[in-house]
Amino acid sequence: MAKICVIQGPNMNLLGQREQSFYGQETLEQLHARLIQKGRTLNLEITCFQSNHEGEIVEFIHKARGIYNYIIINAAAYTHTSVAIRDAILGVKIPVIEVHISNIYARESFRHKSLLADIVQGQICGLGTLGYELALEAAAYYLKQGGTMLE
Amino acid sequence: MAKICVIQGPNMNLLGQREQSFYGQETLEQLHARLIQKGRTLNLEITCFQSNHEGEIVEFIHKARGIYNYIIINAAAYTHTSVAIRDAILGVKIPVIEVHISNIYARESFRHKSLLADIVQGQICGLGTLGYELALEAAAYYLKQGGTMLE
Amino acid sequence: MAKICVIQGPNMNLLGQREQSFYGQETLEQLHARLIQKGRTLNLEITCFQSNHEGEIVEFIHKARGIYNYIIINAAAYTHTSVAIRDAILGVKIPVIEVHISNIYARESFRHKSLLADIVQGQICGLGTLGYELALEAAAYYLKQGGTMLE
Amino acid sequence: MAKICVIQGPNMNLLGQREQSFYGQETLEQLHARLIQKGRTLNLEITCFQSNHEGEIVEFIHKARGIYNYIIINAAAYTHTSVAIRDAILGVKIPVIEVHISNIYARESFRHKSLLADIVQGQICGLGTLGYELALEAAAYYLKQGGTMLE
Amino acid sequence: MAKICVIQGPNMNLLGQREQSFYGQETLEQLHARLIQKGRTLNLEITCFQSNHEGEIVEFIHKARGIYNYIIINAAAYTHTSVAIRDAILGVKIPVIEVHISNIYARESFRHKSLLADIVQGQICGLGTLGYELALEAAAYYLKQGGTMLE
Amino acid sequence: MAKICVIQGPNMNLLGQREQSFYGQETLEQLHARLIQKGRTLNLEITCFQSNHEGEIVEFIHKARGIYNYIIINAAAYTHTSVAIRDAILGVKIPVIEVHISNIYARESFRHKSLLADIVQGQICGLGTLGYELALEAAAYYLKQGGTMLE
Amino acid sequence: MAKICVIQGPNMNLLGQREQSFYGQETLEQLHARLIQKGRTLNLEITCFQSNHEGEIVEFIHKARGIYNYIIINAAAYTHTSVAIRDAILGVKIPVIEVHISNIYARESFRHKSLLADIVQGQICGLGTLGYELALEAAAYYLKQGGTMLE
Amino acid sequence: MAKICVIQGPNMNLLGQREQSFYGQETLEQLHARLIQKGRTLNLEITCFQSNHEGEIVEFIHKARGIYNYIIINAAAYTHTSVAIRDAILGVKIPVIEVHISNIYARESFRHKSLLADIVQGQICGLGTLGYELALEAAAYYLKQGGTMLE
Amino acid sequence: MAKICVIQGPNMNLLGQREQSFYGQETLEQLHARLIQKGRTLNLEITCFQSNHEGEIVEFIHKARGIYNYIIINAAAYTHTSVAIRDAILGVKIPVIEVHISNIYARESFRHKSLLADIVQGQICGLGTLGYELALEAAAYYLKQGGTMLE
Amino acid sequence: MAKICVIQGPNMNLLGQREQSFYGQETLEQLHARLIQKGRTLNLEITCFQSNHEGEIVEFIHKARGIYNYIIINAAAYTHTSVAIRDAILGVKIPVIEVHISNIYARESFRHKSLLADIVQGQICGLGTLGYELALEAAAYYLKQGGTMLE
Amino acid sequence: MAKICVIQGPNMNLLGQREQSFYGQETLEQLHARLIQKGRTLNLEITCFQSNHEGEIVEFIHKARGIYNYIIINAAAYTHTSVAIRDAILGVKIPVIEVHISNIYARESFRHKSLLADIVQGQICGLGTLGYELALEAAAYYLKQGGTMLE
Amino acid sequence: MAKICVIQGPNMNLLGQREQSFYGQETLEQLHARLIQKGRTLNLEITCFQSNHEGEIVEFIHKARGIYNYIIINAAAYTHTSVAIRDAILGVKIPVIEVHISNIYARESFRHKSLLADIVQGQICGLGTLGYELALEAAAYYLKQGGTMLE
Repeated sequence: MAKICVIQGPNMNLLGQREQSFYGQETLEQLHARLIQKGRTLNLEITCFQSNHEGEIVEFIHKARGIYNYIIINAAAYTHTSVAIRDAILGVKIPVIEVHISNIYARESFRHKSLLADIVQGQICGLGTLGYELALEAAAYYLKQGGTMLE
Repeated sequence: MAKICVIQGPNMNLLGQREQSFYGQETLEQLHARLIQKGRTLNLEITCFQSNHEGEIVEFIHKARGIYNYIIINAAAYTHTSVAIRDAILGVKIPVIEVHISNIYARESFRHKSLLADIVQGQICGLGTLGYELALEAAAYYLKQGGTMLE
Repeated sequence: MAKICVIQGPNMNLLGQREQSFYGQETLEQLHARLIQKGRTLNLEITCFQSNHEGEIVEFIHKARGIYNYIIINAAAYTHTSVAIRDAILGVKIPVIEVHISNIYARESFRHKSLLADIVQGQICGLGTLGYELALEAAAYYLKQGGTMLE
Repeated sequence: MAKICVIQGPNMNLLGQREQSFYGQETLEQLHARLIQKGRTLNLEITCFQSNHEGEIVEFIHKARGIYNYIIINAAAYTHTSVAIRDAILGVKIPVIEVHISNIYARESFRHKSLLADIVQGQICGLGTLGYELALEAAAYYLKQGGTMLE
Repeated sequence: MAKICVIQGPNMNLLGQREQSFYGQETLEQLHARLIQKGRTLNLEITCFQSNHEGEIVEFIHKARGIYNYIIINAAAYTHTSVAIRDAILGVKIPVIEVHISNIYARESFRHKSLLADIVQGQICGLGTLGYELALEAAAYYLKQGGTMLE
Repeated sequence: MAKICVIQGPNMNLLGQREQSFYGQETLEQLHARLIQKGRTLNLEITCFQSNHEGEIVEFIHKARGIYNYIIINAAAYTHTSVAIRDAILGVKIPVIEVHISNIYARESFRHKSLLADIVQGQICGLGTLGYELALEAAAYYLKQGGTMLE
Repeated sequence: MAKICVIQGPNMNLLGQREQSFYGQETLEQLHARLIQKGRTLNLEITCFQSNHEGEIVEFIHKARGIYNYIIINAAAYTHTSVAIRDAILGVKIPVIEVHISNIYARESFRHKSLLADIVQGQICGLGTLGYELALEAAAYYLKQGGTMLE
Repeated sequence: MAKICVIQGPNMNLLGQREQSFYGQETLEQLHARLIQKGRTLNLEITCFQSNHEGEIVEFIHKARGIYNYIIINAAAYTHTSVAIRDAILGVKIPVIEVHISNIYARESFRHKSLLADIVQGQICGLGTLGYELALEAAAYYLKQGGTMLE
Repeated sequence: MAKICVIQGPNMNLLGQREQSFYGQETLEQLHARLIQKGRTLNLEITCFQSNHEGEIVEFIHKARGIYNYIIINAAAYTHTSVAIRDAILGVKIPVIEVHISNIYARESFRHKSLLADIVQGQICGLGTLGYELALEAAAYYLKQGGTMLE
Repeated sequence: MAKICVIQGPNMNLLGQREQSFYGQETLEQLHARLIQKGRTLNLEITCFQSNHEGEIVEFIHKARGIYNYIIINAAAYTHTSVAIRDAILGVKIPVIEVHISNIYARESFRHKSLLADIVQGQICGLGTLGYELALEAAAYYLKQGGTMLE
Repeated sequence: MAKICVIQGPNMNLLGQREQSFYGQETLEQLHARLIQKGRTLNLEITCFQSNHEGEIVEFIHKARGIYNYIIINAAAYTHTSVAIRDAILGVKIPVIEVHISNIYARESFRHKSLLADIVQGQICGLGTLGYELALEAAAYYLKQGGTMLE
Repeated sequence: MAKICVIQGPNMNLLGQREQSFYGQETLEQLHARLIQKGRTLNLEITCFQSNHEGEIVEFIHKARGIYNYIIINAAAYTHTSVAIRDAILGVKIPVIEVHISNIYARESFRHKSLLADIVQGQICGLGTLGYELALEAAAYYLKQGGTMLE
């Protein structure tokens, strides 16, 4: 049974507590429960992790090596500022799918540039929390294919 | 039964005929057949359209009004150069999901900028032709919700 | 009796069908009828042409040589992306007035740059469909003067 | 009877005294007389004002509130450098049409950017002094409609 | 008793007459009266000056030498365009505090750059007309300290 | 009694230990004691917090919701690099005043851009540690007014 | 006998009809006849194609696969705006030589950038219609060598 | 006897009153007296003019037509911001020499760009007030030659 | 005996575990042991520190004051994003040598800019882990000279 | 018999000694011999010159006046950095064709800009050493025509 | 008797041989003779030097130390490209006046930037060869004053 | 015994003669003697070369092929302007270490960009003339390892 980790960046812990008209009332805990459930239907074991600390995300990625077959990451604000997370991903060579709940290309111009985008397999953005589920499906699909499109 | 159109931009008709090691051997026709099949499982009627002509894509979008509930578009090269397609989408106000087979952020810098990205609901890129299927799922999901995140 | 053509770019065929609160309910056909009528009062024979195809607009301009005394053009989206239409105008040397219904300087930044602006006689923008009528008046005036300010 | 003011920026007082082959021999006084006459045919009372002083133009605009129904402005050099005139226009909320005698997009690149363009209703440029007459017609038209396209 | 002048740039004379929902109903005269009153509580003699003319502001600053111990300036639009006012401040070497009623960093991008910011002691913006009072307090504080942080 | 938190960014704990000729000999502890004292005179309960960790500041802001009526923040180096702190502020919707002890516009060019400036109510910079006291006064004033200028 | 196609972009059909002092009186038909003749002397079968439609050029290139050994292209205006033609060339992997009649580096700055230049074998510009003949010679030479320098 | 005017821009009236270690103790009046004296030795009648008002400088230049044979201008701060003065010079077509007392290329980067530099005959900078005398010599020389290098 | 600390930034703990063909098989622990040994031959006491947390590096630098005579730092990813580490170095005024194992100028363009480079004494890059040893030699040399070239 | 010189810039003397798989084994001497031979068939007398010194190339061009009817130049690295060679060409007014062996538009971005391109008649690049032969043919052709397209 | 050297950059040896309508018929030798003569009237011993070689100019400047009291330099093309000449000037610390015969600000944009301008005392441009004479006068003046304005 | 050459760029011959407080009193000859001595301790034969001529440096590098095992280069001013030296290094394929005595990142911004940095093995800067010695050690180390990290 393949293992996948879902990494959530800074401020994601506020999910469901703010801007409910936009993001809905689902909390991060409820989202994670839903993803774990979705994982079961895809025969994937899902681990979810959230941190507001760049260094903790870096270290979680380090520890992912040898454990997880895929990383689903929404690095949130660190998407646009963290070379360290980019380097961590480059270091562990696990395939990665980047997810953004909102459409980052319709927001402030500094959000149009992701420091991860060119080194991940692919990106899903603007499709709400459904994006995580689609990313899981993609991971399941490529794991079944025996590899990723990456590289 | 909701209707969705899949719009393919220039050079997409070469699919399966070039760079097979990367894109696989599936032709555009085979892909479209697969999407139509996928649509059935989602209770969606799928229409596929490909054109190498910017003007034809503009006009297909015009005619989509009142017929299709969602547009899935891979505008290919026109993603980066066509204000006309952007304006057509703005004109018909059908929700749109943008798909790219390859990771456009890992290619030439002029491909990093999509003229559609800020006016569509969301974008899926780098996940191969699976991206179209994920887009169909997203469309099905949001149609069931009775609306889109857009706007 | 001088002859003038009015060239309408992509998506202009949607006029009156979208954003009625802004553009009004007048369709492109009704607008053209009004311009032909206006032409009569100015002793001008007006021909109207709309296309969503860059190449067709280029070819219409080619054929304008020796037939039309003036071109009124709203190249719409192609204003900002078409070097081909620019070159066509440079090739036929008919005086041109550029019209935009909306104020392009109050919209997205990529609309602030017109690839035609520096090679036409003048530009009228933001004055609604009245702008076409004003352009006709200007053409009538300069034809009566026996030349254009251009060059 | 609606009242309209025509505001002329710096160096406009030289009209007719320089570059006669281009601008003609008409002086600013003669132009203003012509505009007042044109106004009568449109049932508009026209007031003309020229100043080489940014501050005086700012103050003329301040005093325009409650008196004039429309402003026609050719801010000349201040078009490209005056945030103060922009702010004055923003402050009085009278609809404004911007006029330029020459085609500013065919001149030095610093003239391509107007600090007024995005806050006025529309712009007419490159059509010679006829541009003022067209602007008066547009103002008459929109006053008759009971409002402007602006906002 | 120390003397401080408050310099108000172009369009500030419209205060209280426009955008009342934002700026309130207080006029410039009322604001100035309030500042003079505030000055008394701080043992400061306040002189207020407003001009729409760049040159007059330059000359007011020239005359400030030897008279005023501090300058509080809201150069308004000239903040972003006047090298002359910058040079005047550099010439008289009186300490200066820059005030902006609104948050200039939340407005058009050309307002993000102040030509005065790097040569004044400090800047207060976005805090409404209260900003002037805070500036007076700061001036009083630094005059009591026997100098400014500047230089 | 309203509650206000003062958030100090990285390296602020060195206050009073370096560059004494510029910043004076007051330590961060002494400054905080002074601010708490100042708060009492304004009937405000002040809590001070300093961290060198971006993630801790993000989390402090999260916890501020429902507790503090205003945030005074000097994000120091993170002012120029942290989208995460920006997002945290956007998430909690507490009014914020940004303070900088030195004049950031007179320093290296990368310090001229604050990632917080356009989403806070206002900014005070260059007025030394007095800036915090002025910010407290402003907060007290706006709390008394029953709202902020923000939004 | 090797086969080569010569592709002419938009407005090239005007050749010989405009700017005769510069381009001479030779029409596109005459030029093509000359190239076919030149081809014979080089033992090459030449096919000439002109279109004002980006999509038609894309499709001509698609059909070139398996038929032509070399492409000589003067994409004219599309040189600077068409990612679609670039992608078509990338898709068919036929060696390409880019020709421009005039010196594009001595014209408007937007003509200095060719979207094809980095993916073709080479470029000849500014040498008039002779450039096509030189390109044919180069093609003949490299076909004789059994390959191209490209890649 | 040829007539030359020397135009001094904003803040030049402070000469000799500030930064004496750099500019010396000579006041503007003394400098002008020296220039008039120098003019006599060159058989030139010199008129000197200083203003802090952009509009006054514009108008002085207007009136110069038909009176002065040469203009020596140090537009000071307006060098970098005034299109109006540029247009005035373009309007009167009197030959102009630009003088700067200090080396503008060794100061803030916004001083490196002169809006007058490309339309004047020449520029002398960094040579102190001697620069005016050298400019007078140059004017005398070119008047004797019967023309200017300009154009 | 002088004391020197070696600070390693994020992801450096992966050394020897990834990209062995490039970086070799030596782990960070082995490298540090080698540096401590090298220190002994230079009569230097070496302390090594690695962290993936920006804040921890900032605080380590704070604590370095009064303890270490030199800092050797490879800030890795933080080199390009951390103003906080820059400010920490500015705060403690210990001489610093920057080391990069790989040649940062031969990698992605965002790695070409170091936020530390202009405030450290010098930089060694591209010379592998040998660079640390060279940095130790340089530190030993300058400590013997009784000062640094810095400042 | 017309005379043509071929000027080779820095490092061209290494031809045939490096990167043989790309450039072939032909040395510069062999290439020059081939060009002289080619010249004979075109009734042209060819002189070849190579230098690694910018100044020597400048002086060779100076001496070319009155001797050579055409210059074929591959300025190599100096193409991108030498204003002096540009000025020399401008000074002697001999028609020039620029040749590059490799495709400079497919290499480092600083090679995309030629300081000569806009002042030469034309450019041939990417066609290997055949480019020189084509340039000779073009020169022969234009000399026979009695002039160049240049100017 | 003070000694001054006049350094002429590349292509200056063509003076009088090209563009006579602009530069006149005077050769470099004649100009130099005139400057030596002018020097005598100012009690200056003038040495003139021209080179097309950057390195020779660098070395001439090196040897100038201890011999010449002033350098007058027209570095021509090297003005815009030579950091080496800049460094040579910085190395010898002789006061320098930069001269350009033509108005470099009215030519190609790459000529607007001088790599010497911010490190010389002053610049004279656009005043023809008279500029050298004016520079000599300035040098004579400042030598008499016992120093330069520089520094 | 391996052979290494040390190449010194323009103005390096002034070493020890200028800015002694910064660079010390050691002349280039003395430095070279020291490096040769250092080489002996590393079993390296050192040859030193200095030139102010770009072309001579290019040619020295050409001749280095087959003779030297390593190049240590301080190209001084040419670091920032010479594509020719870059191409020479690319041509000879000898491993290179770049040295700068001063910290080029703390000087004028045009010195921050080295045209050699991305093609050399590594760079040492800001460590004074000690940097050459460290470079020799690095060369010795990598020669002993039987290769370089480069490529």
